[in-house]
Amino acid sequence: MKMDFDFAAWTDARLLTVEQALDAWVPLRAPAGLGDGMRYAVLDGGKRLRPLLVLAARESVALGQTHEALDDAALRAACAVELIHAYSLVHDDMPCMDNDILRRGKPTVHVKFGEAGALLAGDALQALAFEILTPQDSAIPVEVQVRLCQRLARAAGHAGMAGGQAIDLASVGVALNEAQLREMHRLKTGALLEASVLLGADCAPQPASAWPALQTYAQALGVAFQVVDDVLDVVSDAATLGKTVGKDAAHDKPTFVSLMGLDRSRQYAQELLAQALQALDQSGLPRTEALRALAHMVVNRNN
Amino acid sequence: MKMDFDFAAWTDARLLTVEQALDAWVPLRAPAGLGDGMRYAVLDGGKRLRPLLVLAARESVALGQTHEALDDAALRAACAVELIHAYSLVHDDMPCMDNDILRRGKPTVHVKFGEAGALLAGDALQALAFEILTPQDSAIPVEVQVRLCQRLARAAGHAGMAGGQAIDLASVGVALNEAQLREMHRLKTGALLEASVLLGADCAPQPASAWPALQTYAQALGVAFQVVDDVLDVVSDAATLGKTVGKDAAHDKPTFVSLMGLDRSRQYAQELLAQALQALDQSGLPRTEALRALAHMVVNRNN
Repeated sequence: MKMDFDFAAWTDARLLTVEQALDAWVPLRAPAGLGDGMRYAVLDGGKRLRPLLVLAARESVALGQTHEALDDAALRAACAVELIHAYSLVHDDMPCMDNDILRRGKPTVHVKFGEAGALLAGDALQALAFEILTPQDSAIPVEVQVRLCQRLARAAGHAGMAGGQAIDLASVGVALNEAQLREMHRLKTGALLEASVLLGADCAPQPASAWPALQTYAQALGVAFQVVDDVLDVVSDAATLGKTVGKDAAHDKPTFVSLMGLDRSRQYAQELLAQALQALDQSGLPRTEALRALAHMVVNRNN
Repeated sequence: MKMDFDFAAWTDARLLTVEQALDAWVPLRAPAGLGDGMRYAVLDGGKRLRPLLVLAARESVALGQTHEALDDAALRAACAVELIHAYSLVHDDMPCMDNDILRRGKPTVHVKFGEAGALLAGDALQALAFEILTPQDSAIPVEVQVRLCQRLARAAGHAGMAGGQAIDLASVGVALNEAQLREMHRLKTGALLEASVLLGADCAPQPASAWPALQTYAQALGVAFQVVDDVLDVVSDAATLGKTVGKDAAHDKPTFVSLMGLDRSRQYAQELLAQALQALDQSGLPRTEALRALAHMVVNRNN
């Protein structure tokens, strides 16, 4: 990382923009309390890793050029991917799935708004993601809008996040091998993380030459994210993590830690970080500081 | 209706195309049984009213012109709106919502695949709708793809179907007046029916001059659909209807029948039919036979 890159300042500025946009786009006034559930699920919580990846990836390929319509596109992509992530957490926490009552240190949406309220809030958040990607009377090139919808829909659906959740659901009490565990996470969390990076690159003013490098970076980051999640589920406490700990073991779910042990998992996360950084080194991209810092953040986080 | 229009033949030909497309697009192979739940929810059932409305509306404005890419767009729009409809039924039937065990004469998705399986199948169907609207390497003009995504996302989300479901949920045991009941149905079922007609018009080779007429038609049809639904819930039996009957009264839900009585409801449905047909008469559109026949079908159906 270049010494003149101030990651904290970079993050603060982008989080401010993302939070303001989410606050504006997630409806204050939707019928019968639906907006309250949607806003509770999205606002005032979360690390916003996916939006930051979108914006960092865009900046890595945009060569410092600004472009009002594509700036707007990137912000919309950043928020749309966060809405998909938020809806997946709402549905994942429901009693018929993980039955979790705590998320980001707060009662989960179904605890606060009832199961039906959580179901509908999640459904409406998914629709909203595609709505904000296709604004009316927008200057965003229609090619870009289509590409963003296409990529997000694929990453969210049966061949991406929803497919991974189905494997997760079917894997309780089942002895997965490392390849199967990897496939589950490649879909469940990896698909959306990878999409975040590529959505950002979709918003570049010119075709990016570095797709393979960005893809390698994103895939390594996606696996690393899950490995670290599994480690934290074992070593952390609820106060730090903001959610229930030890739940994988309690649900008899296979994890990287249960498969390869704690020490090897930690080592593996560092290897994946090195892979991600190496991909950026070899990418020829001029501005990878934010992507590099985000990879460090993912691997060395404590919640 | 012109005497030379064979509605049965028209419907059969289009249903064949729609069923084949759904069979091809709803995945056979998705992870861990997810595809089975998705296909169970979508295939082999349903009147396909919304797809037929898409195709009929397109034909009403297309002046007999064929256009391969826009034919494809219309078929994709027809299937996408059906996927949104199908996902909404899956989630609506879940125990935390209507808790229904019978749909189209078959066990509901959560009965067959478990609650978590139903939740995920619904989520994946919504994503799939936007995926099939944005095919890779397609000849469909990107402007059309964006317009379709935009319209469907709005109709499905908080200001459309999901919003209407939220009102429905909040209305159990509450004395709604006619205006409130109407607003609920305008969103819950009307938004997607109206979108179906307008999605079809979006796929015309030239800008349609008859938007207001199509909108009037679609809105009248949307209300009529719900009025007839309420009537059938009272007068039909489960074998004819293919789903649980009398459930609105059992759940103490307000309906057009509970509000205005059975006879007045039936009369109101006929008035709405007349409104819809009159809008077509005054539209100047050259080919409205299928739209007219669909309106008759909606109002005079017995299931």
